[in-house]
Amino acid sequence: MLRAPSPALLESLRSLLGPRGFTRDAEVLAPWLSDWRSRYHGRSAALLSPASTAEVQAIVARCSAERVALVPQGGNTSMVGGATPDPDGGALLLSLRRMNSVRSVSPEDNVAVAEAGVILSDLHDAAAAAGRRFPLSLGAKGSATVGGLVSTNAGGTQVLRFGPMRSLVLGLEAVLPDGSLFEGLSALRKDNRGYDLKQLLIGAEGTLGIVTAASLKLVAAPGSRSVAWVGLGSPAAALALLRRLEARLGEAVESFELVPEDALALVLAGIPGTRAPLAGAHRWHVLVESVAPEGARDSAEALQEALAAALEEGLAEDALVAANEAQASALWRLRESIAEAERLQGPSVKHDVSVPVSAMPAFIEEARAAVEERFEGARVVAFGHLGDGNVHFNVQPPAGMAAETWLAGQAEAVTRLVHDRVGEAGGSISAEHGIGQMKLGELARTADPARLAALRAIKNALDPAGIMNPGKLIPSL
Amino acid sequence: MLRAPSPALLESLRSLLGPRGFTRDAEVLAPWLSDWRSRYHGRSAALLSPASTAEVQAIVARCSAERVALVPQGGNTSMVGGATPDPDGGALLLSLRRMNSVRSVSPEDNVAVAEAGVILSDLHDAAAAAGRRFPLSLGAKGSATVGGLVSTNAGGTQVLRFGPMRSLVLGLEAVLPDGSLFEGLSALRKDNRGYDLKQLLIGAEGTLGIVTAASLKLVAAPGSRSVAWVGLGSPAAALALLRRLEARLGEAVESFELVPEDALALVLAGIPGTRAPLAGAHRWHVLVESVAPEGARDSAEALQEALAAALEEGLAEDALVAANEAQASALWRLRESIAEAERLQGPSVKHDVSVPVSAMPAFIEEARAAVEERFEGARVVAFGHLGDGNVHFNVQPPAGMAAETWLAGQAEAVTRLVHDRVGEAGGSISAEHGIGQMKLGELARTADPARLAALRAIKNALDPAGIMNPGKLIPSL
Repeated sequence: MLRAPSPALLESLRSLLGPRGFTRDAEVLAPWLSDWRSRYHGRSAALLSPASTAEVQAIVARCSAERVALVPQGGNTSMVGGATPDPDGGALLLSLRRMNSVRSVSPEDNVAVAEAGVILSDLHDAAAAAGRRFPLSLGAKGSATVGGLVSTNAGGTQVLRFGPMRSLVLGLEAVLPDGSLFEGLSALRKDNRGYDLKQLLIGAEGTLGIVTAASLKLVAAPGSRSVAWVGLGSPAAALALLRRLEARLGEAVESFELVPEDALALVLAGIPGTRAPLAGAHRWHVLVESVAPEGARDSAEALQEALAAALEEGLAEDALVAANEAQASALWRLRESIAEAERLQGPSVKHDVSVPVSAMPAFIEEARAAVEERFEGARVVAFGHLGDGNVHFNVQPPAGMAAETWLAGQAEAVTRLVHDRVGEAGGSISAEHGIGQMKLGELARTADPARLAALRAIKNALDPAGIMNPGKLIPSL
Repeated sequence: MLRAPSPALLESLRSLLGPRGFTRDAEVLAPWLSDWRSRYHGRSAALLSPASTAEVQAIVARCSAERVALVPQGGNTSMVGGATPDPDGGALLLSLRRMNSVRSVSPEDNVAVAEAGVILSDLHDAAAAAGRRFPLSLGAKGSATVGGLVSTNAGGTQVLRFGPMRSLVLGLEAVLPDGSLFEGLSALRKDNRGYDLKQLLIGAEGTLGIVTAASLKLVAAPGSRSVAWVGLGSPAAALALLRRLEARLGEAVESFELVPEDALALVLAGIPGTRAPLAGAHRWHVLVESVAPEGARDSAEALQEALAAALEEGLAEDALVAANEAQASALWRLRESIAEAERLQGPSVKHDVSVPVSAMPAFIEEARAAVEERFEGARVVAFGHLGDGNVHFNVQPPAGMAAETWLAGQAEAVTRLVHDRVGEAGGSISAEHGIGQMKLGELARTADPARLAALRAIKNALDPAGIMNPGKLIPSL
C-alpha cells in the first residue's frame, strides 16, 4: 500500500533539493494541481523540482523506500488528466521543468540530446540554430516538454511524414521505480539486446519510471515550406485529395489537417485576429503543408500546381496557397486554435480516436450521424489528422441547454457510442492523448482481456510498490 | 520448474494437430535441432506444426498447463542459436512454417498482413504483385520467415532508409504464454492505449509469446533502382562518401554496405561464378543502392553523376554503376555471399556490433588494430551496414593454425576485447542478430544492472512458468 509522505521524508527532500527545488507554498503549487482544462483537481504536500538526474534518482529512491507516490509533470498540458495528482494528497508532484538543458545538438549525426524539461519550441529553436529541424509540433509547443512528449508518445501535425514521438526517440535516460538509472541515451540505429525498454517507457505516462533526457532525431531543415488552405465537400474528398497530392509530391506532404466548417466558425468567432481564409462557404476544409529540400524547386510552386490539378479534377472546391510566412502562420493558427476555441465554448465530450486511414471518411460521417440521431441537438465537431487516421471527435451539448447538466446525464453514453463505433472499425480509443485518468474506465471496458492482463503484469513487475503516477493508464481490477 | 512432455500431452497434441502437424520422426526433426552454422545442437521429443492461430493457442495452453517449454522456429536462420532447443530434450519444437498465407495486401493502405510462416522472398513477391514493395531484405530471404524477422527485429540491407523490422511492423497477432490471444493486427498509425505490447514482442526472440501474424508496411515500388560498386581507401572515406551522396540524393540512397578487400577476396575465392567488379585493387569497397520514384529521372543517371563528383573530389578511387539488372544482382551477390564465404573458410569469432554512425570508422580501425596486436596472426574482417553504424566484426584464426584449437583458447578473450571497445563507444553487442544463446554471457557481463533487472522482471511477469524459448535472451541469475 502507498503511504502519505512523512514529515521526515519531506524534510529530507527539502534538504536534498534546496529552496529552488522544494516548495510547499500553496500558491506555487496551485497551477499544478489541476489540468489546463480544469477538469481534474488534486492535492499534494509538496512540489519537487530536481535540477539533475542524480537528484531525480535520490527522490525516487527515497520515495520508493517509503512507498510514497510521485506524479511526474512537464508542461501540464495533458488532455486526459495524466499529470494531475489524486485528491487524497498522498502523492508528491515531481516537476522536471528545471531540467531544461539541451545537452547537445549534433548536426552531423542528426541527433539532439534534450533533458526532460526542455520546452518543445525551445528544442525547435536549438535544432534550427544548428541548421536542422526537430520534426514534431503541436498546439501546446510553448508549454509541452520533452519528458511529457516522450511519456505520452505525442503526435501532432507532422506525424504523416515523420511519425509520432516514438519514431523520433533514438535513446532515453530514465530513472526506474527503484531509483536505478536506465542509461540508454546512446543513439544507435540498431540495438537488439533484448526487450526494448525505451519503447516501453515511450507512452507509459510516467507509470514505469521518470524520463530524464532523450536523444532525438533531427532532420534537414527544409529549403522551403508552403501552407495551403483548401475547401472541399466531404472527408472522402479530403482523403482522395491527400492520395492525389502524395502521388504527385511524395513525402513532401508533411501535414494534412481536416477542419469542418463548424470548427472553423468557432475559431473565427472566438479567437481574436483570425479571419476566414477562403471567400466562399465549404462544408470541410483542409490545411496542407508541404516542403522542399534545399536547392530543389520552391515547394509553393509544386503545391500550387498540384492543387490546381486537383481543382480541375473536382477533388477540391477552392484553394489558397499562403503567399508568405505570415499568411502561413495565420493558416496554422486557425488549425491550432480549435482546441482553445472549443474550450471557450464551454465543456464538451471529447474523443481522440483512430481507425485505419482508409476507413476514416466513413467513420466520421457514420459516427456523426449516429451521435446526432441518438442525442438530439448535440453537435459533432470532428477535426484533425486525417492522414494519420486520427480525428478529435468532440460532441457539444445542444445549444441552449445547460451544458453541465446535459453532460452529467449524457457524456458517458455519448462516449460509449463513439468508442463502440471505433471498436467496430478496428480502431483505438486513444490515438495520441493517452489514457491518463480520463479514459481508464473506457480502456477497461473496451480492451481485450489479454491486453489488460499484460499491461497490469508489466506495471506490477517494474513498479511493484505502485509509486509511479498511480491512478493513471492502468485500470484497477 | 519446467517439465518434460508427458506421453499424455504428446498424444493430445498429436490428435490436435494431425499427421501433418505432429511428428516424432528423427529424420524429419534432425535439420531443426541444429542451427545453420552447426554450432548449437539440441534435442526434442516432437515437432509441432500448427496450421492456424487457434491451433497455436491450443498448443500453448496445453503446454502452459503442464509447464512444458516451447521453442518457436521459422526459417531456422538464427546467427545466435536463438531457435535451437536445449540438449536436455525437454522442449517441443513449434514450427510456424505451415502458417504461410499472406492474408491480405492492400495497396491503398500500403499494408500487407502476413502469417508468421511466410518466407521473406514470398512476401516480396506478394507486394510486387500489388505494385508495392516490402522494404526489408537480407541474405537469408529465401528461408527467413515473417515470425522470425519480427521476433528478432531483423535488419538487413535497407535499414538506412526504412529502418529495421520494428519500423515496418504496423500490427501484430500473437499468442501469449498463457494461450491467450493478443489481437493487435489493426494497422493504426496512432494508438496510445498504454504500453505498446507490439514493441515488446518485436525482438523478444519468442521469449514472451508466439507471433502468429503481422501487419506490415509497404512502400511504393520504385520506378528505377541502381546499384554501384565503389573502391576507396578507408572507412572514413566511405562515411564521407555516404554523407555526400545523401546530400545530393537525399533519401534515394537505400543501401550503403562496406566491404573490406579481404572479405571480397574470400567471396571471389569461395563462391562460384563471382568476379571482381573493379579492375584495380582497393583496400575498401562500398556497395551503394539508390532508387528513384516512378516518373522521376532514372536513378542510374543521378547516381552516376553523384559518384563522378565524388571521384573528382577524391572521396573514392573507382566506381562502377551496374548497367542492368543482371549486373546489379551480381554486385549484390558479392555482398550477400560474405557470410557463406566465411563459413566455407571454417569457424571464426563473429560479432554483430553497432556504435553511433559517426564513431564507426574510428571504431573499425582501432578495434581491428587492437585485436591484431593482441592476437598475433588473427585476421579481422569487418563488413556491413556502415550507414547504420553496424558492422559484422569477425575474427579469423591465424592462417596455418588449427582453427578449433585456437578458438577454444582465444575466442572468449577476443570477444571480450571487441565488446569492451563497443562499450567504450556507447555501442551495442548485438546490433541486429539478437542475443539467442550465443550472447547470454556477454549480455550479462556488459549490460548495466538496471537493464538486466528490468528484462528479467518483464520476462517473469509475462511468462512466469518460463515455457517460452527458455535459455534464450535472458541471462540466468
